[in-house]
Order: sequence, then C-alpha cells, then structure tokens
Amino acid sequence: MTANAQSWLDLSPDNGFGLGNLPYGVFSTPATGRRTGVAIGDLVLDLQAATGDDVHATGSLNAFMARGPEAWHALRADLTTWLTDTAHRDTIEPHLLARTDVTMHLPIEVADYVDFYSSQHHAENLGRMFRPDSPPLTPNWKHLPIGYHGRSGTVQVSGTPVVRPSGQRKAPSDDAPTFGPSQRLDIEAEIGFVVGTPSELGRPVPLGAFRDHVFGVCLVNDWSARDLQAWEYVPLGPFLGKSFLTSVSPWVVPLAALEGARVTPPSRDPKPLPYLDDTDAEPWGLDIAIEVRLNGELISCPPFDLVYWTPAQQLAHMTVNGASLRTGDLYASGTVSGPGKDQRGSFIELSWGGKEPITLQDGTTRTFLDDGDVITITASAPGADGIRIALGEVTGRVEPSR
Amino acid sequence: MTANAQSWLDLSPDNGFGLGNLPYGVFSTPATGRRTGVAIGDLVLDLQAATGDDVHATGSLNAFMARGPEAWHALRADLTTWLTDTAHRDTIEPHLLARTDVTMHLPIEVADYVDFYSSQHHAENLGRMFRPDSPPLTPNWKHLPIGYHGRSGTVQVSGTPVVRPSGQRKAPSDDAPTFGPSQRLDIEAEIGFVVGTPSELGRPVPLGAFRDHVFGVCLVNDWSARDLQAWEYVPLGPFLGKSFLTSVSPWVVPLAALEGARVTPPSRDPKPLPYLDDTDAEPWGLDIAIEVRLNGELISCPPFDLVYWTPAQQLAHMTVNGASLRTGDLYASGTVSGPGKDQRGSFIELSWGGKEPITLQDGTTRTFLDDGDVITITASAPGADGIRIALGEVTGRVEPSR
Repeated sequence: MTANAQSWLDLSPDNGFGLGNLPYGVFSTPATGRRTGVAIGDLVLDLQAATGDDVHATGSLNAFMARGPEAWHALRADLTTWLTDTAHRDTIEPHLLARTDVTMHLPIEVADYVDFYSSQHHAENLGRMFRPDSPPLTPNWKHLPIGYHGRSGTVQVSGTPVVRPSGQRKAPSDDAPTFGPSQRLDIEAEIGFVVGTPSELGRPVPLGAFRDHVFGVCLVNDWSARDLQAWEYVPLGPFLGKSFLTSVSPWVVPLAALEGARVTPPSRDPKPLPYLDDTDAEPWGLDIAIEVRLNGELISCPPFDLVYWTPAQQLAHMTVNGASLRTGDLYASGTVSGPGKDQRGSFIELSWGGKEPITLQDGTTRTFLDDGDVITITASAPGADGIRIALGEVTGRVEPSR
Repeated sequence: MTANAQSWLDLSPDNGFGLGNLPYGVFSTPATGRRTGVAIGDLVLDLQAATGDDVHATGSLNAFMARGPEAWHALRADLTTWLTDTAHRDTIEPHLLARTDVTMHLPIEVADYVDFYSSQHHAENLGRMFRPDSPPLTPNWKHLPIGYHGRSGTVQVSGTPVVRPSGQRKAPSDDAPTFGPSQRLDIEAEIGFVVGTPSELGRPVPLGAFRDHVFGVCLVNDWSARDLQAWEYVPLGPFLGKSFLTSVSPWVVPLAALEGARVTPPSRDPKPLPYLDDTDAEPWGLDIAIEVRLNGELISCPPFDLVYWTPAQQLAHMTVNGASLRTGDLYASGTVSGPGKDQRGSFIELSWGGKEPITLQDGTTRTFLDDGDVITITASAPGADGIRIALGEVTGRVEPSR
C-alpha cells in the first residue's frame, strides 16, 4: 500500500500519522463529550459520528477492543477505504476535527498494569551500579522476562502533572529513614502493549496467540522515585517508588500498523524454555526508535529493537501460570536502554546513579529531575509503505511536592 | 445494642450473621440475576427488591460503596430497623432467601489489589528460613508496611477451583530452571480491606481518614507457588508465583460491624515516622481469630490482633506518595502468623520450608498442598453486643495442573 499518496486528505509524508498508522484515542470537545477518535494527519476522525456505533462513545477503547481482532481489522479496512475513496469524502469530512481543538484522555480503562524489565543494557547498567561485585544480571534474567504488577489506578494520560512524591528515604550512611520529597525523581522510557481480547483463567496464552490478544502499542513513562524505591524494594519489589504516576501516550497504535517494524529479536543464550522459545515463531522484535527530551533538548535515543524479550514472550510468560487476561490490561517493556551513553532510558543510568551529572545546552546540569522540568518521550517506527509511523508522545512536567 | 434478641427473625446467637454483622455480598438466583444481598442468619436479604434501588442490581458492591460513608451508615441503620421492628416484617420477609438457595459471586469489581507483609511472626519465620545468617527482618520492615501490587484480574470468589500453576522452578542445586507444575503450592491466610471512597491523585490519605475510605473487610487466601516465587522474585518481587489466583470470601463485613473488635495494636519500636504514628490516633488493631482447615481438619489459628501494622497504617502508607484510591481497591494484610507452631498462616511456615511435614488425623502428611486438597479459612471477631461476628469463609480445592 502506498497509502498516503492515495488519500483525498492532504497528508504530509513526515507527519507520522498517515494512512499506515491510524491510531485510536479518546478525545473530547464541549460538543461531543468523550469519544473514540482516529488520528489522521493533523486531524482526528470522530468515530461515533462517522460510524453511528455507540461503542465509540463509551469513554474508553475497552468496549471496542473487547470485540476482538476481526472487528479491529474490519474497522481498519473501512477507515482506509473511507479516507482514500473520494466517494466517502462528503460523509467523512464533516466528522474530522483539528487535533489542536480536542482534549485527549486516557485511551483505555486500565485493568492490570504489568511492568517488565526486558532491556539487557538497562538491567546490566543497574546491576553494575547496585551490585558492583556480582554479575550484572541476576541468575534468572536470561531465563524469564522479569516483571511485576504496578498500580493501574495511577496510569494517566500524557500531560498529567508529575507531583513530586514524598516518602521514606534512607541513605546507606543514615541511621534511620527520613520523610520528605523524593530527591531522585526519574523517568523510565518504555513501550506499552494493550490487551484487547481477554483469556480464560487457567489457560496460558502461547507465543503464537500474541496477535489474537494484543490490540496495540503506546508510549509509557514509568516515573520513578529512586530514593523511595531503594529503601522499600527488598524483598517484595517496587511499590511507592513507582505507584504515584505512570504516564501513557494518548494514541494507541494498532498492532497492524507495525508490520513494517517487525524485526528478528536479539539472539538468546541460553536457549529459552519451550514456552518462551520463539526461534520458529513469528518474530516480534520491533524496530521502534525512541527519543527522550528534557525541556525540549534531546538527551537520549533508546533503541527498542535491542530489547531481549519480545512482547509476545512477555505475554506468554505472564499467562503461563494460568493467569487470565482482561480487556484493558497494559504491560510495558521496562526501561529501554542501548549500549551507548546517549541511549539510556533513565536518569539513574544517564547520570550513573547521580555520580556523573549530564550537562544541558543551557549550561545547567542534572542528575535527576528538577521541579519545572518537562520530559517528553516520542517514538517512531518504519511503516509498511516506507513512511514512518509516529507513536505520538508522552509528556509530563514536574511540580513541587505538596 | 442487644441486637439479636430484638429481631423478629429467629436468629441463633452462634450463627455469626446476626444483626451486629449484616455483611454485604453479591448473590444470584435464576430469577433475580446478580444482586446485592445482606446476610442475616441463614438467609440473604435481596436489597434491590427490598429497597427498589437499582444500585443493588449492578452486579458488584462498587456503585453502592462509591456513595460514601453516609450512605453506608444510613442503609445499615435502615437494615437494623427493618429487621427489628415488626412493622416492617410484612414488607421485608418476602425478600429473604435461603442462603443455601443462592449462588455467591465476587462481591467487588477489584480495582487495584495490594498485598502487604505486616505480620511480624510471618516475616521473621520467612527470614529465618531464607536468610539464616542475617537478622530475620529486613532493615526497612519496622519502618514501613512493606507491600506490593498483585494481579486484580485473578482475584476470584471463594470456591473457585485452584488449578495448580505451572512455571519455572530451579532448586539451588540445579544448573538451569525446568518447567512444570508447582511442587510447592501454598496458601496465605489473610484479612482483606475494601476501599469504598476514592481519593484524589496527589493527596495522601492520613491515618485519621481510614473510616472515610474503607468500606469493609473480607477473608483472603493468596494462593502461592513457592518454587515459582523463589526463582522469579529477585529483584522485582513476586509475580507468577502469586498471580494465578487470589480467593476472597463472598461476604464483606462493614467496618461498622467491627467496632467491638478494635484493640490496641502491638507496641512499635522504633517509633514510626509521623505519618504512620498511631499513638494518639484511633487504634485499628482488630481482634480477629482466623482458622485454617485442610480437608476439614483444623490446622492453624492465626491471630490477627498481633499484626504489627494496622489497616489504617497500611492505607496511609499506600497513599503517602500521592497515589490515589479507587472504589474497589482491595488491600490485604499479608499472611497472618502468631508465635505458636499452630498459629502459622502458610504451609511454608507450618512445614518449615518443607523440612518438617505436618501429620494429619488421617495419618497422611503434608509439606505443601496435594491435588484434591481443600483449604477453608474462616474467621470471627467480637461484636459490639457480645455476640461474635463471622467473616464467613474462603475455600478452594486444588485441581491438577492442565
């Protein structure tokens, strides 16, 4: 498909929201209330108005996602037809709104939120910092995608203010913990995967069923208070160091839009156990290029194609014990980092645990986030038609603790 | 209130579901569909039929819980009047069904599920087993209620079959992990707290606001696969070792029913930080006596009054970073264990890591659960009128792995 050339809309090829993308989100205007929309160029198509289907006026994508892959593919085919065939122009055009005129909302009602830890460079960086006398990866890391459950109730849409959390911090040299605002507020640049089709309790979802269950992809910033996390996380894992806020991009890119981004994942040694072995399965490495900006300045370019465990493996692992999936489940890759210093997806890595401040173009330095800092994560991937697909952005501004 | 004596119902004083209890659940019959009911003696009152309020026909307690404490107290006062004043007998009696004639369902739509680790005896037992050369408690344990997020999508009502989960296990002596059914399937006997009133993102809920947010109490069995958990949990905590199933009792006992069970919690040393210091606050220790039965045989009596951190402290801690609450949030105490061998709330403690099998009355022994085993947890607490209040039961039968 040389899609953009065929639309009756005037689409810039470098816009990122061409016919090959067609991501879903939830928008509102004073006139419409919350509705599902599809981004096309600088516009958003009001799906409830265009289709007359009230599933697109429920305030989240969940009801539509629950209909399953056949419904997803049918609507995507219709959208392509409507936006390319001039016979539909008169009926569709009235339902296109300027994206600058709408407010975007959290696109999904998040059921369970799981965060993985699947970037080898990230895990090794943290291991080197925190356990300098041990191998950088824990013994289980190459056998399974390590993950944990996060707080789904504090997953919010891009733009939600990042109120600096308070909590208990204790430096190794302190006798006792103190209470106060986090002094090591950080980001985690991640890719998120949204489950559309539920699964039955007690029935694992195998590698090959990834397409049947996952609806689409978004950007995730898993804000982290490293000082709170360091004091609390042994033995049961991160809790308050993460649960104050997780931000997601407003546009969920359908899995179908990422066909051109699929790549062979990194080779794995040792060979994973059969339920995780994707040697003979459809590869779900994804060539997504992430960019992290601090107050507009590009500070990191984490490469998603190097992530060790794919989203298909993560899904197979997450359900291999019989855990069921629900529509709206969100799971994220974990912080994405590459081998280069400018490919690290968190400040704890960029500043090497706070020991090596980074210097910005304005001459200031950072180890972690200051009040007023704005972090914006964007990403793009190759489209099937040779035109890059944008994943939009997830942004947030740090506000002082209350 | 000498409540039971006043009802026009013939209530046995040792039934546990007297006028001082009045717990809420969701029942169904072929005729009613799913409705909210209140247990009274061996009966259940159909609240939708009795009140005409469709909030009680929504299939979960959430919509009613979201109305807040004034609505909870008003309905409880009405229920007491209706069941004691004979003037209401003719209107109420037709809406009473035998509890044996109804099917019970998951009472709440679970938003986030958090599991704490607040029993000192339990934490010390596990520390002694797993870290024999270190102090039994980690350095943070007496400074904060350690907790983590569990999988809310696999919280199910009592009676749900416990399919033995499969996953990766690796004994320290093994070179590599193997895949297969868990060989160390365990229970965790806990008390759960159900949030009714939500809170605003960025605003902590202080100790004193516990009553404003928590609707009621239930029993929780946090089924655990110890071999899966041991291999996966470093560094991000429990995941597949827990996420296959968490069972809850069908009846949610209102906080108001537990006034007579409130006791001074254990003394704390060191003194907690101010946001956790309940010295001058309303005490929320709870004198709940738990009983654990295996195939009908009483094997443990964990005492909840010894739990170190109260549910009010857990709530204050969970939100001190600004994390918001939603209606339907469920948080559990963590495994409850007392100092005695017959007060341990898990098999890993009862069999001391599998090294000391327990012998049952039928002559068989157990370290962990066998296929076919039935675990039933019950609990009771003093009522304000001197009549004990039952928390019902949470039960489950182990089925072979699929």
